[in-house]
Amino acid sequence: MFPVNTWYVACSADEIDEKPLGRTICNQAIVFYRAHEGKVAAVEDFCPHRGAPLSLGYVCEGKLVCGYHGLEMGCDGKTVAMPGQRVGGFPAIRSFPVEERYGFVWVWPGEKDKADPALIPHMEWHDNPEWAYGGGLYHVKADYRLMIDNLMDLTHETYVHATSIGQPEIDETPCKTTVNGDEVVTSRFMSDIPAPPFWKAALRAKGLADDVPVDRWQICRFTPPSHVIIEVGVAHAGHGGYDAPAEHKVYSQVIDFITPETNTSMHYFWGMARKFNPGDKALTAQIREGQGKIFSEDLEMLERQQKNLSAFPDRALLKLNIDTGGVQSRKVIERVIAAERGAS
Amino acid sequence: MFPVNTWYVACSADEIDEKPLGRTICNQAIVFYRAHEGKVAAVEDFCPHRGAPLSLGYVCEGKLVCGYHGLEMGCDGKTVAMPGQRVGGFPAIRSFPVEERYGFVWVWPGEKDKADPALIPHMEWHDNPEWAYGGGLYHVKADYRLMIDNLMDLTHETYVHATSIGQPEIDETPCKTTVNGDEVVTSRFMSDIPAPPFWKAALRAKGLADDVPVDRWQICRFTPPSHVIIEVGVAHAGHGGYDAPAEHKVYSQVIDFITPETNTSMHYFWGMARKFNPGDKALTAQIREGQGKIFSEDLEMLERQQKNLSAFPDRALLKLNIDTGGVQSRKVIERVIAAERGAS
Amino acid sequence: MFPVNTWYVACSADEIDEKPLGRTICNQAIVFYRAHEGKVAAVEDFCPHRGAPLSLGYVCEGKLVCGYHGLEMGCDGKTVAMPGQRVGGFPAIRSFPVEERYGFVWVWPGEKDKADPALIPHMEWHDNPEWAYGGGLYHVKADYRLMIDNLMDLTHETYVHATSIGQPEIDETPCKTTVNGDEVVTSRFMSDIPAPPFWKAALRAKGLADDVPVDRWQICRFTPPSHVIIEVGVAHAGHGGYDAPAEHKVYSQVIDFITPETNTSMHYFWGMARKFNPGDKALTAQIREGQGKIFSEDLEMLERQQKNLSAFPDRALLKLNIDTGGVQSRKVIERVIAAERGAS
Repeated sequence: MFPVNTWYVACSADEIDEKPLGRTICNQAIVFYRAHEGKVAAVEDFCPHRGAPLSLGYVCEGKLVCGYHGLEMGCDGKTVAMPGQRVGGFPAIRSFPVEERYGFVWVWPGEKDKADPALIPHMEWHDNPEWAYGGGLYHVKADYRLMIDNLMDLTHETYVHATSIGQPEIDETPCKTTVNGDEVVTSRFMSDIPAPPFWKAALRAKGLADDVPVDRWQICRFTPPSHVIIEVGVAHAGHGGYDAPAEHKVYSQVIDFITPETNTSMHYFWGMARKFNPGDKALTAQIREGQGKIFSEDLEMLERQQKNLSAFPDRALLKLNIDTGGVQSRKVIERVIAAERGAS
Repeated sequence: MFPVNTWYVACSADEIDEKPLGRTICNQAIVFYRAHEGKVAAVEDFCPHRGAPLSLGYVCEGKLVCGYHGLEMGCDGKTVAMPGQRVGGFPAIRSFPVEERYGFVWVWPGEKDKADPALIPHMEWHDNPEWAYGGGLYHVKADYRLMIDNLMDLTHETYVHATSIGQPEIDETPCKTTVNGDEVVTSRFMSDIPAPPFWKAALRAKGLADDVPVDRWQICRFTPPSHVIIEVGVAHAGHGGYDAPAEHKVYSQVIDFITPETNTSMHYFWGMARKFNPGDKALTAQIREGQGKIFSEDLEMLERQQKNLSAFPDRALLKLNIDTGGVQSRKVIERVIAAERGAS
Repeated sequence: MFPVNTWYVACSADEIDEKPLGRTICNQAIVFYRAHEGKVAAVEDFCPHRGAPLSLGYVCEGKLVCGYHGLEMGCDGKTVAMPGQRVGGFPAIRSFPVEERYGFVWVWPGEKDKADPALIPHMEWHDNPEWAYGGGLYHVKADYRLMIDNLMDLTHETYVHATSIGQPEIDETPCKTTVNGDEVVTSRFMSDIPAPPFWKAALRAKGLADDVPVDRWQICRFTPPSHVIIEVGVAHAGHGGYDAPAEHKVYSQVIDFITPETNTSMHYFWGMARKFNPGDKALTAQIREGQGKIFSEDLEMLERQQKNLSAFPDRALLKLNIDTGGVQSRKVIERVIAAERGAS
């Protein structure tokens, strides 16, 4: 169902600032917390003493303390201490490689010794004064691959997001998908069209006219295990489209980190990094709210789609040209899973 | 569990006026909508493209449009069009015979070529100025046959509906059940008794004395698959009871269309057609509200009964004389199901 | 999972004063009610007529009347009467031995002829003017043995109940467990320590200084099937601790009757009998409220622990010295169950 020898986003960094966080990732109940000097740590959410969830406990001097009988857990899964007990013989619980990066905690749910932080993809917008970022998290009761399908085919914008970013020209313009190794790219370039409401607002925010024809682009980039980064933007028509000089265009990256919770549910981390008016916090909040609303429109569709697919697991679905991005991404996922299995 | 080569009520006509309606009937997820010129149509609630529920879509120029990627579905289950696609090779989904009649949409969940609209039972009260109708819908988590049992034995009124239509004389008066082919009739005639609260109000509504003895009747008529029409009324005692001239009596038909949703749940369409004061809309609303309340009193009993029966599926129940109506109705249902199986 | 030839608390006596009560005990759905002259009775919650739950009915002249069709059930499980029916041949339903004692209804869910009311444990505080009692009921979605573990090891007070009865000295003081036949006793005696908030308030309530060192004791006594009575108290230090004269100490019994509902849920009857200021009803209410809050703090922990254990049923847990009380209690339970099986 999903690769495990890979990095997934587990939570945003601030979710563990106050107390430990219990979250299931790839069918494993894990507790995330800040250990010594705030360094992120992750172990099984299961106290080796009596099976209580460690996420109901608290952190004291960098150690995770079980809220039931005070067992102190180390970030390597070995019990450090327990009042009145010798803990040397206590069985260890599993610990998980974690890294804090780009405002997120990343977790490696598979074989520990294969975890290499260098494999976490680079995000150029982080800590970059030319960019601003805002985002959120949705829990969705659907196979994470349905979200990849969704994001690798923006045709659905015309229907699901008709009042914000959808427009008939999306349907009318063919998309093109290419596969480069493990990367799948689906792109669509629309020329000389009106800007939909979301982009009109973005043009105005940058002080550009919003009532003139634009060139619009969507470049969806899937990388394993389940990241989809989408370059989106519009430029006043006639200035080169995607390649237009900065003063004629507004553009962003839609950031999607999709983490399997179980076989039929996911944690969906969505956001937008934009390269215009980066200092305008009110705009960041406004875009975040708008994007949150747009993305929430997909949730019922995906959850109901999942129910239909669960009811008819053997029913063949169509694989049209517009589905190529999702189909190719799923092939990459299958290849990665097969490689994992072959290696172990 | 239930016949399928038969007509069931799927929804009231106005439930699909604004947008498509997804509803499970006999374990099949179906979407009902108004196609060309408002004609009712029903197909599987499963888009052949990616399995999205078509009921989350909308109707455009008589075609059902999937809300995910814009596939246009015809009422025969064949895809009509999809933006940028050739749809000739798309697999068809199942369509269902439907008819709009008596303010309801009727659906035939079985073999399409056996569907004959002439088999929909005649309702004399519909579009008849001498009658008025009001009703509603309850979703009940119980085998639909428990509702048939309930309605074919009005003894329970004494206990479940003590404050409205129940009275001890019901228990004290034996009922009689006859079977005529596929029709089962259970009737009870009570003579010279006080009218219970519901009928007192009905007498007053027609300008008749409510404090004099009455003759009261209940004639429950089951026809397959699961319709129960109950003639009910009271006449001032001594004028011939059921056969009394119209000026001495008030009477109605209780209308019950019971549609299996799953093996242990149902859609229960209830209503009352009355033949007095038909033009009095306030009275229609008042009766509807009262009947809705009375019928809701049965729901907890049936749902809890279902839980008990599910916990003890092999436990034999009693079949008393008062249960004969339900027992005989179930026999008819079994015969109809056996005939369906023999034929196919 | 649980002994059945034994007495469990089914409900508090006032829960059946107004109407019958349906409650599942040891996986059996039972209805409890007051029959002739208020005597408690218990039968299966399943009407032999059509399987309706008798707990939806009412009591009339000492007979339990089914709320569906008026069947009158006797407290021996035999149908007494039914309107218009001869009931001689009706199948009996199961009846259960019940006793009302100490403000509770006790039920024997196993073999009827083995039920001996003399086996109900004696409660010295009941109907005793020197004592006052207050308590409540929690439904907990966890194996009842997790609550026994919890109560037979009060180490957890330090962590779960840090602001009321917890204090570090509990952890620092070893406990001692002894087994006397079927009785398991875990005790802890702490000397010359500050009183925690709950006991400070109790000292003040009795007019004793609350800012002086105290000796504190906890004596947890398990008896089968699942009763845990805990003697708790503090005495001003230097007067003999547990054995100090009454004027120097405040003490109570924590009463815990733990009744399995299903294999993974329980009814938890908790309370406190205290031997100071017994006439002070406001104090009774205040202690009851405080105890209810303290005990509710355990619920999430136990329910989440149950989820973890259900997810990993084969994972071995630790059995530390602090767990000895629970471990020994579970051994007694296993022995009782084995004896039951051997005997039948």
